[in-house]
Amino acid sequence: FSMESHSNQGPTKFMEFPYVSTPHKSLMVDLVSTVETRLASQLLPCALPPDVQYYENESGTNHASLHIRSGLTSSPIDFILGSWLHCQLPTGGALNITSFSSYLNPSTDAPNFLLELIQSSPTSLVLILDLPPRKDLVLHSEYLQTFYEDTQLDAPRQKLEKLAEVKPYYSSSLYIRSVVSPTAILVRIEAQEGGLNLEDIIENHVGPVAKEVLGIWLDKCACGKREVGENERGELKTRDDLVKRKTIEIDLGSNFPRLFGPDAADRVLGAIREAYRV
Amino acid sequence: FSMESHSNQGPTKFMEFPYVSTPHKSLMVDLVSTVETRLASQLLPCALPPDVQYYENESGTNHASLHIRSGLTSSPIDFILGSWLHCQLPTGGALNITSFSSYLNPSTDAPNFLLELIQSSPTSLVLILDLPPRKDLVLHSEYLQTFYEDTQLDAPRQKLEKLAEVKPYYSSSLYIRSVVSPTAILVRIEAQEGGLNLEDIIENHVGPVAKEVLGIWLDKCACGKREVGENERGELKTRDDLVKRKTIEIDLGSNFPRLFGPDAADRVLGAIREAYRV
Repeated sequence: FSMESHSNQGPTKFMEFPYVSTPHKSLMVDLVSTVETRLASQLLPCALPPDVQYYENESGTNHASLHIRSGLTSSPIDFILGSWLHCQLPTGGALNITSFSSYLNPSTDAPNFLLELIQSSPTSLVLILDLPPRKDLVLHSEYLQTFYEDTQLDAPRQKLEKLAEVKPYYSSSLYIRSVVSPTAILVRIEAQEGGLNLEDIIENHVGPVAKEVLGIWLDKCACGKREVGENERGELKTRDDLVKRKTIEIDLGSNFPRLFGPDAADRVLGAIREAYRV
Repeated sequence: FSMESHSNQGPTKFMEFPYVSTPHKSLMVDLVSTVETRLASQLLPCALPPDVQYYENESGTNHASLHIRSGLTSSPIDFILGSWLHCQLPTGGALNITSFSSYLNPSTDAPNFLLELIQSSPTSLVLILDLPPRKDLVLHSEYLQTFYEDTQLDAPRQKLEKLAEVKPYYSSSLYIRSVVSPTAILVRIEAQEGGLNLEDIIENHVGPVAKEVLGIWLDKCACGKREVGENERGELKTRDDLVKRKTIEIDLGSNFPRLFGPDAADRVLGAIREAYRV
């Protein structure tokens, strides 16, 4: 990566996904493009500084890209956030994480979108795919019905579960386990000797399921026109802000300084906190 | 079962668990006795009519027992509820369910206790074991920390998960999936040819884990002296009542009339609603 590539080409740089397999890259580009096309009129351009859109550590072993676009005030979109990260591991392998999330603002109570692919070896992938609810589902069973039962959101999860290569994945963070919905796809995919390879599984199984879930999110959540009254917005904002703060703390707080040095970590965390407004 | 056995021997009848294996029965008796001994001074006797403590269907193929003891007003215990159910299946096999739960009242916000063993074949068992939270964990991360992280409640789940015979179990009800905690044990145990049989697994694996979770519940929840102010009690009661109502609806509403006829179903559901006060 030459220094020139940092300047003023953020979305492109982000959309390169340079360290992952072709089907993995295609899937990410497909998902992000689908959202950016469908919501084009509601999104501001990415306003991150170039050294946050792309950054690396001093020794050049770790590389990462961040892409954030806020929604217009008139839109229910709070912001969309994509990222990729590549880290050489001491063992000689590499860790590759790609993620894409969409957050709605308190003008609606519809669920957010969350996708993360964590690949720590050529044969093993963790997939996190969910529409995290923005209310306590126990207290709001009509919300559960609307967004999770009526949309049949458990069907894509059941499809993936049937593959022999798919095992449940338990996040080490109980908070993350609490944030996701009862239809969340939290799985570890292990390619097996003589079976499908990981690229096949991403192309033919993860991809279709991720697109199906994103389609439900776009139709029923982002464009569902489910508005909430002024009274309820304060409550939603409190919960949303808590989730954002805890997610930063869990996902980034401890790892980023170690992986990219304190300066880059401060810069990137600052940019995320600004987008998150927390 | 002679008619005589119905009268006035409720707890004994309940404690017989006549249709399940010896280790399964021992485990249930152990758990119920542990709670009834430890909380003896806080529990009223079982006040259910004999034809609710034990009942069967007209053709005598289905048998069941219910055991409910309310807590004294001065106690944080709302009630404890145990049951067993035996149904002959059209296929020639039998369905056996045994369950034991403990509900706390709104003087405390500590989690409840929930255990259910569902055996639908000699080689297969579903285990549901949890301390269901009584608050939205996303909004109350200090509650998550106190009852789930500091107690290391995920450790017993991880122990069971390691067994080759243990697979995740997904309740068909998304509401039930929402009610349980992030450390909930929701598993299907399938004995395998040449491996451990189900009785071994219950005795040596399910039993120790269930006792460990119950121990945490007794020490930290039932006897944890975590009281809440008057203000918060209303909110807790609303959520508790909703959970109780939905649980009755999901667990019993549709199946009971079919299994035991409308009269017995009305009688038993009435008794449960009275104990639940919903």
